Amino acid sequence: MDAQYFLLLFNQRCIMASQLFRVALRRTITTVAAIKTPSTIKAVRYVGPSLVVSGGVFLYSFWPGGGHVSAAQKETTTIDTAQFMAAPITQLDTLEANQDDTKTKMELLILRIQTEFCRALEREEVGQKFLVDRWQRHNPKEGGGITCVLQDGATFEKAGVNITVMFAPLSKQLQASMRARGKTLPEDKQFTFFAAGISSVIHPRNPHVPTIHFNYRYFEMQDQDGNNKHWWFGGGTDLTPYYLVEDDVKLFHGTLKGACDRHNPTYYSRFKKWCDDYFFIKYRGERRGVGGIFFDDLEADKPEDVFGFVKDCAEAVIPSYLPLVKRHKLDVVSEDQRRWQLLRRGRYVEFNLVYDRGTKFGFATPNARIESILMSLPLHARWEYMHQPEPGSPEYKITEVLKNPKDWV
Amino acid sequence: MDAQYFLLLFNQRCIMASQLFRVALRRTITTVAAIKTPSTIKAVRYVGPSLVVSGGVFLYSFWPGGGHVSAAQKETTTIDTAQFMAAPITQLDTLEANQDDTKTKMELLILRIQTEFCRALEREEVGQKFLVDRWQRHNPKEGGGITCVLQDGATFEKAGVNITVMFAPLSKQLQASMRARGKTLPEDKQFTFFAAGISSVIHPRNPHVPTIHFNYRYFEMQDQDGNNKHWWFGGGTDLTPYYLVEDDVKLFHGTLKGACDRHNPTYYSRFKKWCDDYFFIKYRGERRGVGGIFFDDLEADKPEDVFGFVKDCAEAVIPSYLPLVKRHKLDVVSEDQRRWQLLRRGRYVEFNLVYDRGTKFGFATPNARIESILMSLPLHARWEYMHQPEPGSPEYKITEVLKNPKDWV
Repeated sequence: MDAQYFLLLFNQRCIMASQLFRVALRRTITTVAAIKTPSTIKAVRYVGPSLVVSGGVFLYSFWPGGGHVSAAQKETTTIDTAQFMAAPITQLDTLEANQDDTKTKMELLILRIQTEFCRALEREEVGQKFLVDRWQRHNPKEGGGITCVLQDGATFEKAGVNITVMFAPLSKQLQASMRARGKTLPEDKQFTFFAAGISSVIHPRNPHVPTIHFNYRYFEMQDQDGNNKHWWFGGGTDLTPYYLVEDDVKLFHGTLKGACDRHNPTYYSRFKKWCDDYFFIKYRGERRGVGGIFFDDLEADKPEDVFGFVKDCAEAVIPSYLPLVKRHKLDVVSEDQRRWQLLRRGRYVEFNLVYDRGTKFGFATPNARIESILMSLPLHARWEYMHQPEPGSPEYKITEVLKNPKDWV
Repeated sequence: MDAQYFLLLFNQRCIMASQLFRVALRRTITTVAAIKTPSTIKAVRYVGPSLVVSGGVFLYSFWPGGGHVSAAQKETTTIDTAQFMAAPITQLDTLEANQDDTKTKMELLILRIQTEFCRALEREEVGQKFLVDRWQRHNPKEGGGITCVLQDGATFEKAGVNITVMFAPLSKQLQASMRARGKTLPEDKQFTFFAAGISSVIHPRNPHVPTIHFNYRYFEMQDQDGNNKHWWFGGGTDLTPYYLVEDDVKLFHGTLKGACDRHNPTYYSRFKKWCDDYFFIKYRGERRGVGGIFFDDLEADKPEDVFGFVKDCAEAVIPSYLPLVKRHKLDVVSEDQRRWQLLRRGRYVEFNLVYDRGTKFGFATPNARIESILMSLPLHARWEYMHQPEPGSPEYKITEVLKNPKDWV
């Protein structure tokens, strides 16, 4: 065994030991929390098996420069993982050794955003905390994710914040779909891809608080020789109110526009339109909500530039949404308003199951983690035959906007 | 104006007048019923516009022999439309003049089955009646349907029984899909198709009463010269219990098997397997329910033979299902059992929106009547993250059967 390999193994053991300690600590805390809130007890069962630390050797060897970690680098632990909801998916030493790599930056960004958003939402709750479920792909070498769920809370009926870090061979089917999207992938090469993303849907209990969805993701792919490299970012944030409060929608869109404008004056209007076009239930002729921004295949000369934009968008989620939660979470609610909210949640289910590309992609992926994909569905939904709101009513007002998107800022 | 055309117009006026009278009568009755049950008041609004009688000239002229209705035939009204939930979709004189045509037989069968099934379900309710919504296609010449819905009843949370009679040109896309299914359709010809079918989903309130779905349909197509004619039947009946009561499932399957065995000793086992294969949620590895029978593209030398089988299947619905309603509609229900029912209804929504061919076909049809298609969705559904029943529990027992279909008779 050569010295470098020994160092690597030794280091991994140390990391595993420290992770196991943190895991044990977290388990104790989660169990205590579960006893305090009996409804989470069942869910805690699923935390256990997913806490097995992933064998990161494969990921490590993939990482460029992963084999050349110096002893000096090892001693400086600059990444504070204690701040995250769970341990990173990639081995800590791999992340530390490659801090300038966009893959590392993206994984650390989504870990941080996940924590900040979960903590901000928990502050609006009455005692209930997010359940943290760290899981691995069927083949653990292909990565995994951290799913945080808060269900049946006082403020949030169902809140899901999921991150995924995935590294896998690119199937022939996916290669074809990448080519259809304009990527140059020679037919005679085999490709591997890396994907890291955060995805979240928050369904509040009060019909006067809108539902929010956001998703930011980074893709990278290269052939087996490390050539023919492609990378791009995608993402977006969109709002689904049940009642139209113009000031809320303006604050939401205005915050997103601010993040866009700091990077490119054309981004907001382009991505706002893209969002209106994407979240469209064609057979009903209406959008899922009042939109926001949506983009895909975003590249530039330097990944840092796009990363900076995506980082700003992800950081804009809390200021665009939390004020609306604070404003309306205690609003008075009638039975009819609750019923309307559930009917609109039915439409949310329709969009996600019939149209959403991420969901369809998940269904088509062998051994996909369905529970993390369908985390986006509300706790309750309702379908009534031929329900149509009274013309002129507040329910009617919002459907008009869903049929004819407006400019808000 | 020649005599025959005058006779046709005169006859149509008479039918319209008599229909309008029946409509007025039904409206009065429905309005009275609505006042008695305030929750249906809103729905009644939608009955009005759909009651405009359809201009059947196009359908009339399509019907072979439709132009040669003799005065003698006119005088003998052998079809008693008063027994139906609403007037037939096809003009009465067209039906009367073509009583041996399979199209007529099928339309009259589904009109009768719709009425019998609705009335049988109403007898299990506490006062609430089906709302009858007679509607036309966007282009009224293409036919329409009668949708009967009972919502928020004491026994049935949502019960929908829909018939459709449609006559339309076959789009290029549909022609291609027909070819893919093995039909010989010359590329240089234009085709028209006729479809008549009944489709129903009943979601009871009590979790101990299963959900039932059935659908029986007849297709006919021919080119513009009346050549290259194809016809076939399709359909099926399937059961979705929330709790497994073996005697119930055996009664259900046994009744369907009886209908099958009267026609062909191989039908039941073939169509039972087809049903298990069709109602499969692939990404969950489970079936929607305990199956039943399912078949498509069923032809024979003579349409009468298949029609007889389909008639027997449709007539088997009531004896296969109503006993289960009577047995369990007043069973004691716990909150946990209700929650389980709603979670399983979520799976029903998943199957229908992600897999069901009829639903997908509807979404892809321009100007399809979405409300009649999505009538199949339950009033309420629920999604919980990572819900899994306790091993050994009654909830677990049913999921085992959904994963591994059994032989019941």
